[in-house]
Amino acid sequence: MATGQSTIKAAIVGGTGYTGVELLRLLAQHPHVALTAITSRTEAGTPVASMFPNLRGAVDLAFTTPDDAALQACDVVLFATPHGVAMDQAPGLIEKGVKVIDLAADFRLRNLDAFEHWYKMPHACPDVLQEAAYGLPELHRDAISKARVVANPGCYPTTVLLGLAPLWQQGRNYTDGSRIIADCKTGVSGAGRKASVGMLFGEASDNFRAYGLPGHRHHPEIIGQLDAHTGSAVDLTFVPHLVPMVRGMMATLYVTIADSALGTDFQALFETYYANEPFVDVMPAGSIPETRSVRGANTLRLAVHRPDNGNQLIILSAQDNLVKGASGQAVQNMNIMFGLDETAGLHQLALLP
Amino acid sequence: MATGQSTIKAAIVGGTGYTGVELLRLLAQHPHVALTAITSRTEAGTPVASMFPNLRGAVDLAFTTPDDAALQACDVVLFATPHGVAMDQAPGLIEKGVKVIDLAADFRLRNLDAFEHWYKMPHACPDVLQEAAYGLPELHRDAISKARVVANPGCYPTTVLLGLAPLWQQGRNYTDGSRIIADCKTGVSGAGRKASVGMLFGEASDNFRAYGLPGHRHHPEIIGQLDAHTGSAVDLTFVPHLVPMVRGMMATLYVTIADSALGTDFQALFETYYANEPFVDVMPAGSIPETRSVRGANTLRLAVHRPDNGNQLIILSAQDNLVKGASGQAVQNMNIMFGLDETAGLHQLALLP
Amino acid sequence: MATGQSTIKAAIVGGTGYTGVELLRLLAQHPHVALTAITSRTEAGTPVASMFPNLRGAVDLAFTTPDDAALQACDVVLFATPHGVAMDQAPGLIEKGVKVIDLAADFRLRNLDAFEHWYKMPHACPDVLQEAAYGLPELHRDAISKARVVANPGCYPTTVLLGLAPLWQQGRNYTDGSRIIADCKTGVSGAGRKASVGMLFGEASDNFRAYGLPGHRHHPEIIGQLDAHTGSAVDLTFVPHLVPMVRGMMATLYVTIADSALGTDFQALFETYYANEPFVDVMPAGSIPETRSVRGANTLRLAVHRPDNGNQLIILSAQDNLVKGASGQAVQNMNIMFGLDETAGLHQLALLP
Amino acid sequence: MATGQSTIKAAIVGGTGYTGVELLRLLAQHPHVALTAITSRTEAGTPVASMFPNLRGAVDLAFTTPDDAALQACDVVLFATPHGVAMDQAPGLIEKGVKVIDLAADFRLRNLDAFEHWYKMPHACPDVLQEAAYGLPELHRDAISKARVVANPGCYPTTVLLGLAPLWQQGRNYTDGSRIIADCKTGVSGAGRKASVGMLFGEASDNFRAYGLPGHRHHPEIIGQLDAHTGSAVDLTFVPHLVPMVRGMMATLYVTIADSALGTDFQALFETYYANEPFVDVMPAGSIPETRSVRGANTLRLAVHRPDNGNQLIILSAQDNLVKGASGQAVQNMNIMFGLDETAGLHQLALLP
Repeated sequence: MATGQSTIKAAIVGGTGYTGVELLRLLAQHPHVALTAITSRTEAGTPVASMFPNLRGAVDLAFTTPDDAALQACDVVLFATPHGVAMDQAPGLIEKGVKVIDLAADFRLRNLDAFEHWYKMPHACPDVLQEAAYGLPELHRDAISKARVVANPGCYPTTVLLGLAPLWQQGRNYTDGSRIIADCKTGVSGAGRKASVGMLFGEASDNFRAYGLPGHRHHPEIIGQLDAHTGSAVDLTFVPHLVPMVRGMMATLYVTIADSALGTDFQALFETYYANEPFVDVMPAGSIPETRSVRGANTLRLAVHRPDNGNQLIILSAQDNLVKGASGQAVQNMNIMFGLDETAGLHQLALLP
Repeated sequence: MATGQSTIKAAIVGGTGYTGVELLRLLAQHPHVALTAITSRTEAGTPVASMFPNLRGAVDLAFTTPDDAALQACDVVLFATPHGVAMDQAPGLIEKGVKVIDLAADFRLRNLDAFEHWYKMPHACPDVLQEAAYGLPELHRDAISKARVVANPGCYPTTVLLGLAPLWQQGRNYTDGSRIIADCKTGVSGAGRKASVGMLFGEASDNFRAYGLPGHRHHPEIIGQLDAHTGSAVDLTFVPHLVPMVRGMMATLYVTIADSALGTDFQALFETYYANEPFVDVMPAGSIPETRSVRGANTLRLAVHRPDNGNQLIILSAQDNLVKGASGQAVQNMNIMFGLDETAGLHQLALLP
Repeated sequence: MATGQSTIKAAIVGGTGYTGVELLRLLAQHPHVALTAITSRTEAGTPVASMFPNLRGAVDLAFTTPDDAALQACDVVLFATPHGVAMDQAPGLIEKGVKVIDLAADFRLRNLDAFEHWYKMPHACPDVLQEAAYGLPELHRDAISKARVVANPGCYPTTVLLGLAPLWQQGRNYTDGSRIIADCKTGVSGAGRKASVGMLFGEASDNFRAYGLPGHRHHPEIIGQLDAHTGSAVDLTFVPHLVPMVRGMMATLYVTIADSALGTDFQALFETYYANEPFVDVMPAGSIPETRSVRGANTLRLAVHRPDNGNQLIILSAQDNLVKGASGQAVQNMNIMFGLDETAGLHQLALLP
Repeated sequence: MATGQSTIKAAIVGGTGYTGVELLRLLAQHPHVALTAITSRTEAGTPVASMFPNLRGAVDLAFTTPDDAALQACDVVLFATPHGVAMDQAPGLIEKGVKVIDLAADFRLRNLDAFEHWYKMPHACPDVLQEAAYGLPELHRDAISKARVVANPGCYPTTVLLGLAPLWQQGRNYTDGSRIIADCKTGVSGAGRKASVGMLFGEASDNFRAYGLPGHRHHPEIIGQLDAHTGSAVDLTFVPHLVPMVRGMMATLYVTIADSALGTDFQALFETYYANEPFVDVMPAGSIPETRSVRGANTLRLAVHRPDNGNQLIILSAQDNLVKGASGQAVQNMNIMFGLDETAGLHQLALLP
C-alpha cells in the first residue's frame, strides 16, 4: 500500500456518470495519483476523452471491462456506480489490501433495516458495512484515516450536516430540540447522467419545483448521522427542490436556539468550530453564500443569520454537489486514507462567472 | 364610469418594466378594454412595439408623457411605476371618478409607520391609503368590488397568503401558533427591468442564493395581512431566494398543526376553501406544483403535504410572479371593480414547455 | 365534414410529446374546435392534465388507445407521432372522409427515394404522398385548402423557406445562384420529449454546439421545396446548432445578390411579398428579431440586412419551433382546410420576458 | 525585470470586470507570479474576495486606487480596463521597464484611422501602437517574446483567426478567394460585468438573437490580421450572435476551397499546422466541439468538416471567451514575454458538466 507522498495507483469503477468525470478531472491533475484504470461494462473500449472531451490531452485511458486483477493491483478503488455495486466487490478488494471509497450509498446507512428499506435490496456484506467509515472528514477524520472502506456521503447530507454540526459540541446542545427545517435546493447534475424525461433541458429549464416528498433517501442518512453526532433523536424535516442550474447545492436551515444558549455568539461559535478546516468557509457576518462561489471547488461556504437577534438561527450552506458533495470529497477522503496532504489535488478555485 | 360588459378605457402609467409589458400583453386581448394611453417620461414618443417586439401588430400605441387630462378621461389607471408615484396621482384621479390600481406598494401597508420605515418616504395621501382595498380577490373580493383604489399585492404575499389562508377560517385556527417558515423562491423577473449588476445573466445564471436577509419589504405586508386575516399576531419567518429562471415563484410553507386539528383532512379543507375560485388550483393529494405549469397564466397552484400524517403541514404554492403575482391579478381586480366576468381576458393557458 | 364556422371534431394521435401538448394548448382554446380524443398507446388511461399540468382545468380528456372508430368519427386527425405512424393510418382515414395533418415527416418529401434514404423505412402509401399538400400556407395556401392530407413542414424548413422565398418571384431570381448559407439555431425542445442523455439539462445547459454534420433530414426537405419554388437547383448549405433555451429557432441566411438585382430595395421587396400574411412579420429596416419575441406565438419575424449596401443579403428569420414551426402551423393549416378564419385560435401574443 | 523561473511581480489595472476576476483566478495559482496590486478607482479599499467570493482564501488583496509608483515597481501590468485606459499609461510604464499587456483594444488595430473610427477616440501613443505585438501566440510567438507591449486579441478574432489560419501557409492559399462567412456565437459574459438592460437575465435568458449588424469592432481586427497573415485582402462577413450561456464562444466558418486545393487532406493540414501548439486542439475527423468542453480552460478546439468531400470547408472553432479569448491568453502571453513555460498556470481542465 502506498503511503506518504509516493504515487498512489487509483482505479475508478463506473466512470461514465457525472461523479465519474469529476473524479477524472480531479485525479488527472492530482500530484500523487496515477490513474490506472477506469471501468464501464457498456463503454469498454471507448476512449474516456471521446465521451468527455474536456479531458482530451489529460486522460489517455479507455474504459475497460471491470476486471478483478486490474483492480486488485491498485491501492484504491473508487466506485462511481449505482447503488449496490460496491458492496459486491468491496470484500474481495479489502481482502487484497485495496482500499475502497464508495460514492454511492452502499456503506452510508449503518442500520441494515434502513438500508434495505430505502434502497430496496439486501446488503451484500453487513460486516464490512459495520467497519466502514462515514467519509465526512470534518466529523470523522480519524476514522477515515484508518478505514479500509469509506462511505462517501450524499450531497445533501454533506450540506446539511456541516451546516448544523457546530450546534452540538463539547456536550452542549445549542438548539432547543424542536423541529429543524432543512429546505434544500440542488442543481440538476445531482440527478446523474442517465437519460430521463424529467431531467431533460426542456423539462428542467426555466422551472422550479420540489421533489422527494414524502420521503428521500438522504433523509435517513442525515438523521442517522445527526443522531450519532448529538447522541439524541433529532427531529428534522428535509425537503429537496430542483433548481435550473447544472451544479450547486444549497441548504437553508431553520433552527430554534435553546433558551440557555441565547447569549451565544453564533458567528464566533461557527468560526471557531471550523477554524482549521481547509474546505469549510464560515463567511463574515451578514454574508450570503451563492452556489457559483464554489462551482468546481471543494469548498463548502456557510453563513449564519439570526434575525433581530432572536431565538432563531438561519444557516445558509452552499457547496458544489459534484465536488464537496461527491468527487472532491472522495479525493479528500483518499488523501486522508493515504496520509497525503488533505488538500492535495484540490486547490481549484471556483469558476465565477 | 363603465360597468357591465361595455368597454373600459384603461391607461397604464409607467409601462416600460416587466409588469408594464405584461399588462399590455393581457389588456391588448381583453375583450372589454380599450387601452387608451401608456405613459413613460423617458420613452415618450417610442412606439411600445419597438421596445417590446412581442406586441408588434397588437399594440399600436406609443409611450406618451404623463398627462393628467388623458388619464382623467379613462375609467381606470394602472400604475406600473416605482414605489411613490401612484400615491401622488391617485387623489386627483379618484376625485375625477377614475379608479386606480397600483401595482407598486403605495397602498399595501395600512400602517403608516411601517410604510415609511420600509419604503423610506412619507406617504402622500394617508386618507386614501385607509380606504384602499388590498387586491387579493380570494380574500377581499367584496372590498375590491367597491374600491376606488386597489393595492395590488406583492408577488410573495400573494404566494404565501393564498398558501396559508385556509388554515384560519370560520373562527378556527388549525395551526398551533408556533413559528411558520416561508422559504420562498423567485425567478429573476421579480427584480424588474432595470439595469443592475446583480441581475445580469452573467451573475444570476447557473447560480442560486438567498437574499433579503435580514429584512424584506414583503415581510411586513405578509404579516399585516395575516394578522388581519387571523385576528392574531402570526410569527412567520420569510426567506426569499433567487432562482435562475425568468418567471415563476414558489413558496414552501412549513406549519405545525394544532393538537386539536390533528384529525383534519387538510386536502379536503383546502379544496373546499378554494372550490369556487377560478384562479386557485388545489392539486390532488401527492402532487408537486412546478412553476412552469403556471408560466404566463393567472393561476396559483397549491399542494398540501403532511409527512407520515404527523403534526406538520408542508404547503407548496406556485404562481407566475408577473401574472397572478402582478399584472394578471391587476386585471382580475379590474374585472371585479367594473363588474365584469372576473376571468375576462385571463384565459391564457401556461406555456409548457 | 364540418365547414365554415361550425365546430370541428379533432383528434390527436400521439399526444405525449412537445408538439402534442402544444396542440392541446392551442386547440383547447380554439373557438371552433371540439377536441374529441387524444391517443397514446403507452399512456392510455392517464388524464392528459396529470402529464401536462398547464392544462389542468382546460383539458378533461384522458389518453386513450388508438381506436379506428373514434378517429373515423372526427373531422380531422392530427398526428404528433414519430415518423412512420401517420402513413399507416392516413389512407384509411381519408377514405372515410377524415382529413389528416401529419406533424412528422411522412408526407414532406415527395421524392420516394429521398424519403426512404433519410428516414430508413419504405413508404406505406406512395399514392397518398403524391396528393399531400406541403403545409406552408404562405407558399401553398390553395393546395392546402383542397387537400385531404397535409404534411406539416419541419421547423427548420419553415424558418429557412420563409426567409428565402421572396428572392424568387414573378419569374425573377434575385440571387446570383451561388451557394446560400443557412446557419441555423434551435432551442432544445426541437429534439422532442424523449429521454436522451444529450438533451439532459446537465448536458445542454450553458453550452453551445453544432450538430447534424454532415447531414440532417431537414436539408433534403428544404432543397426539395426550394427547387420547386425556384424551378432550379439551389445550392444551399445547412448547419443546425443547439442553443440552451427551451423554445425558439433562428436562421441566419447568407445570400449573394444577382448583379442585375443590385438596384433592388430588398426591404420593400420582402414587405410587399408578405404584406397580407397574418403570421409573417417583416420588421423595419435595421431590426434584429429575437426568438423570445415569438415565444408561444404563431409568428415568424424577418429582418433583411445588406451590409454597406453591397451584394450580400443577410436575412434573419426567427420563430417558435413548437408553434409556427410545428403545432401552430398545424392549426393554421387546419383552419385553411376547413374554411375557417386562418387566424382562429392563434391570437396568442408572445410571452416576453 | 524577472526572467526564467523566478517570481514575476504582476499588477492588474481595473480588476472589477469579468476579465479581471478571471485574471485573478489564474494568477492566484500561477507558480511563478506574485500578484502585487489590483486597482479600481471606484472600489478602492474593498477586499477583492468580498466582490468575488470564489477568491476567498486565495486572494488577500484589496482594490487600490491606481498609483504610478506601485505599478512601476511591477514586472508586468495587465490592463483589464475599458478601451482608452491602457494607452494613457503604457508609455510611462514601458519607459520604466515594465511590460504591458492590454486586454482591451488600445493596441489591436495598427491602422490609426481604423482605431479612431471604431473606438471614437484619438490614439494617445501612436508610436507605442506601432511597436506593440498582437498577442496571438500561435501566429506571433516571436514578436510577443520580444515585445514591451502586447495587445491581447479580442475573443472573436481569436476564435476566427485560429480557425482560418492554416488555410494560408508556406505561400499557398487553400481558399478560392471568395467571401468567407464567419457566423459567430458568444456567451453573455462577453458583454462584461456592467449594468445594462440588454444583458439582464430577464432579457438574455431563454432567447437567441444576432447583434452587431451592420458593424462590430472585431470585424476590422479580424480583417487587419487576416490581411497581414495572407498578404491579400480577405473578404469576410462576420455576424455575431448572443447565446444564453455564461461562457463560451463558437465560430462556424464557411470557406470555399480553391480548385487547385481540392486534393488536400484538410484534416491533416490542420493537425500538422497545430501539432506543437499546447492550446489548440484539432479534434478527430467528424468531431463536433462544444463550448462546455473548454469551459474554464485555455484551450481552443477545432473541427474540420467537408460535406460530401466537395469544395466547401466548414470549420467549427470553440473556446472560452474569458480564458483563451481573454485572460488565459493574457497569461499565455505573459509567460512568453518572461521566458516561462508557456503553459505555466494554465493547466486547468474544463469543467464538464
